[in-house]
Amino acid sequence: MKVSTRSGLASGAAIALACGFVDGALAQAPLPGPPLPPLPIDLPTVEHPIRVVEIAGGLEHPWSLAFLPDGGLLVTERPGRLRIVRNGVLDPEPVAGVPEVKVTVLGGLLDVLLHPDFERNGLLYLSYSKGRDDGLSTTAVSRARFDGRALVDVEEIFVAENWSVSETNFGGRMAFGRDGHLYIAIGERQEQERAQDGRVHGGKVLRLRADGSVPDDNPLVGREGWLPEIYSYGHRSPQGLAVHPETGALWENEHGPLGGDEINVILPGRNYGWPLATFGTDYDGRPVTERSSHDGFEAPLMYWMPSIAVSGLSFYTGDRFPAWRGNAFVGAMMLGRTSWTGHIQRLTFNEQGHPIQREPILIELRQRIRDVRPGPDGLLYVLTDENPGALLRIEPAD
Amino acid sequence: MKVSTRSGLASGAAIALACGFVDGALAQAPLPGPPLPPLPIDLPTVEHPIRVVEIAGGLEHPWSLAFLPDGGLLVTERPGRLRIVRNGVLDPEPVAGVPEVKVTVLGGLLDVLLHPDFERNGLLYLSYSKGRDDGLSTTAVSRARFDGRALVDVEEIFVAENWSVSETNFGGRMAFGRDGHLYIAIGERQEQERAQDGRVHGGKVLRLRADGSVPDDNPLVGREGWLPEIYSYGHRSPQGLAVHPETGALWENEHGPLGGDEINVILPGRNYGWPLATFGTDYDGRPVTERSSHDGFEAPLMYWMPSIAVSGLSFYTGDRFPAWRGNAFVGAMMLGRTSWTGHIQRLTFNEQGHPIQREPILIELRQRIRDVRPGPDGLLYVLTDENPGALLRIEPAD
Repeated sequence: MKVSTRSGLASGAAIALACGFVDGALAQAPLPGPPLPPLPIDLPTVEHPIRVVEIAGGLEHPWSLAFLPDGGLLVTERPGRLRIVRNGVLDPEPVAGVPEVKVTVLGGLLDVLLHPDFERNGLLYLSYSKGRDDGLSTTAVSRARFDGRALVDVEEIFVAENWSVSETNFGGRMAFGRDGHLYIAIGERQEQERAQDGRVHGGKVLRLRADGSVPDDNPLVGREGWLPEIYSYGHRSPQGLAVHPETGALWENEHGPLGGDEINVILPGRNYGWPLATFGTDYDGRPVTERSSHDGFEAPLMYWMPSIAVSGLSFYTGDRFPAWRGNAFVGAMMLGRTSWTGHIQRLTFNEQGHPIQREPILIELRQRIRDVRPGPDGLLYVLTDENPGALLRIEPAD
Repeated sequence: MKVSTRSGLASGAAIALACGFVDGALAQAPLPGPPLPPLPIDLPTVEHPIRVVEIAGGLEHPWSLAFLPDGGLLVTERPGRLRIVRNGVLDPEPVAGVPEVKVTVLGGLLDVLLHPDFERNGLLYLSYSKGRDDGLSTTAVSRARFDGRALVDVEEIFVAENWSVSETNFGGRMAFGRDGHLYIAIGERQEQERAQDGRVHGGKVLRLRADGSVPDDNPLVGREGWLPEIYSYGHRSPQGLAVHPETGALWENEHGPLGGDEINVILPGRNYGWPLATFGTDYDGRPVTERSSHDGFEAPLMYWMPSIAVSGLSFYTGDRFPAWRGNAFVGAMMLGRTSWTGHIQRLTFNEQGHPIQREPILIELRQRIRDVRPGPDGLLYVLTDENPGALLRIEPAD
C-alpha cells in the first residue's frame, strides 16, 4: 500500500519551515496539498460514516460559496472569478461582472454572500482585495444584482481604511446578522498595532447597513479617533464568520501566529486583545506576550495550540447527519504545525455552550480546506484551497 | 476507494463522548483504533518519505520497549507480560519472572528500563500497577537481573504511597538521569489534590538511587510533610519521561483533562501547578481554573489545546533521518478531541529551545500510539496500544 508522495516537496517544505514561512502569515505561498485521492472515498467518522464526492474540480483556489434558491451554487475563485454550478455541473464560463480584484499571495476574490432577501431582490455581496496605483492594497466589498447569468448594477459599497503592502490577512468574510446588518471581518495585514488602532479598519469586525452606510447605533459611533464602522476590535486575521442558529450570536474565528487560532463570540464594542493578549507564540518561537488574558479583553470561546490554520466556519442544522445537529464545523488548512495539510473539525458544545469535542474529519485528503458549509440539502460542502482545487460534498455513506 | 470502518463503533463512540469518558482519564476503556491497514505502507512526511513495517503483531496493549545491547528488544504488555523480539521475530514465550501486576483499565505492566550499566550488570527495571487485598492499587517498581531468558533476583524496590480505587493515571514512566539516579513519574489517580500534597507520591516526579533508596540531596529532603522521594510536583497524569541528549535536562509530558496536555522541563523542587493552574478545561467543558499561569508555578515548555493524549516521549539522535536529528517525538493516542485515534508528532525547536513545529505523522494508521523510540539502528520504533497491538518500525522509504 502506498500513499502518494510529491517529489520535490521535502526540500521546499524544509526551506519553508526553516524560514518560518508557513500558511501565508508571512508573504509566502503556502505549501500545497497532494493531489486528491480517487473519489468518491468512504471514510469513518465518530458519528456517521461518510462518502466524499467531487462536485467540481479544476478550480483555482476556491474561497467561498453560496447556495442559490434555485439549487445553483456560486463559488468564488481567488484569482477573481465567480463560478456557478447548476445541476451538479460547473459552468465553464465564469459569471460576468465581477469587479477587478488585486491578486496577491492570499488576496483576490474572497467571499460571496447572498442578501437575506435575495429571492426577491437578487442582491449579493462580494469581498475582495483591491489595489491602487501606489501598489498598496486593501479589502473592499461590492454589491450587485445577479440576474441568473451575470452581475449587474455592481456598486462598490465599502473600501476598508486598511491599505498595506502586505499580501495577506485581508479578512473579507461576511455574514448578515439577525439585525439585518452586514458584518465584515478585516485582518490586520501583519501590522499588529492596527488591531488596537481605531483609525483603521484592520483587525476589526465591521457592521454596515445592507447598502454600505453606517448604522447609527454602532457601538463606537461618536468615539473620537474611532471609525464608526467598527463593531469589535483586537482581531488578528479573521477567517470565518457565522451566526449561531439558536442564539443568533455572531461567531468569528481567526488565525493566531504559531499558536492561538481562536473562535470568538463577537459582542459590540469589545476588544479581543490582539496583539496585547494571545495564546500564540511568534514565528521564531518567542511568546508574543506573557499575557493570555487580561481584564477588559474578551477571551476566546475556544482556541487551538498549535494552530490548525482555521478557515470557514458554519453550523450544521440539517437532517442528513442527525448526530451532527447543532455542531459547528470549521475548515483548517493544516493538520498541526506543519504538515500537508488541512482537514475540517466538527465541534460540539454542552448545554451551557462550552466547547466539548473536536473531531478532525477529512484528514486523509491532506487538502487545505478553505470553507465548509451545510447546503440546504443537509449535506456538507467543502472547498479545497488548492490549484487545482475542488468543491466536494460530504454525504452519508450508508 | 474505501477506508475501513468498524461496524458498531459509532454508537459506542457516541455513548463515550456523551458521557465524557474519553482516553481513560475516567475509568472507562478508551476507544480502540481500527485494524491496521496492510503493511508495509509508504507515507509522506514533510522531511522524509517513510515506510512503516510491522515487526510484531498480536501484542496485547504493548506499553513500553527497551533495546538490548545484543540487538534484542524487550516489550511490555499491559496485562503483565514481558516479551522479547530476537532477530526481528517475537518469541511466543514471555520472559519469566515478571512480578504480579494488578490489571485495571489503564493499569498493569508499564515501563521497562535498562540500567545504564546493563551490559555489565544485566539489571533492568519494571514499573507496574500493584494491588492489595482491599482492592486499592498503586504504582510500584521492581529491579531484576535479566539472564537472557528470564528475570532473576527480582526485588521490589519501590511502592508508591498512592493507593486508590482509580483504575487510571498510574504514571509509571521511568528514566535514568545523567546523575545516575532513577526518575519515576507518578499520576494523581484522578484525585487532583494529591498533586499538591507532599504526603503522597501521586502527581509527582520522583528521584531514587538505582537501588531504590532516597538520595540525600533530593530537593525536599527534610521538608516537613513531604516525602523525600519527591523531585517535582503539581503533575496530573505523566506519560513520558526522557533526558534531553544535549542539555541533559529531564523532560516530562502529561495529560491534561479536556485540554492542556503539556511537556515540562523538570527542575528540582518545582511546582508544575496542577490542579491550581492549567490550560485545560474539565470534562464538562468548564475551566478547571481561571489561571493558566501563576507566580511560583513552572509553565509548560509547550502544551496542546485540544489534547492529543500524549504518551511516550523521546529524542531523535540517529542518522537514518538526518532532518530529524535533535527533534523530539511524542506519541499520541488521539488525533484531536476525539476521533480514532492517535499518531506521533515530530517536534522541532529553535536554537533557544523554543518549540517551533509540530508535525503529525502516522495519522493514516488511526492507532492509539503508546510509545515511540529511536532504536540504536537509527530507525524509529512505535507501539500501538491496541488489542491486537503492534510493534512497528519506521524506515526511510527511499
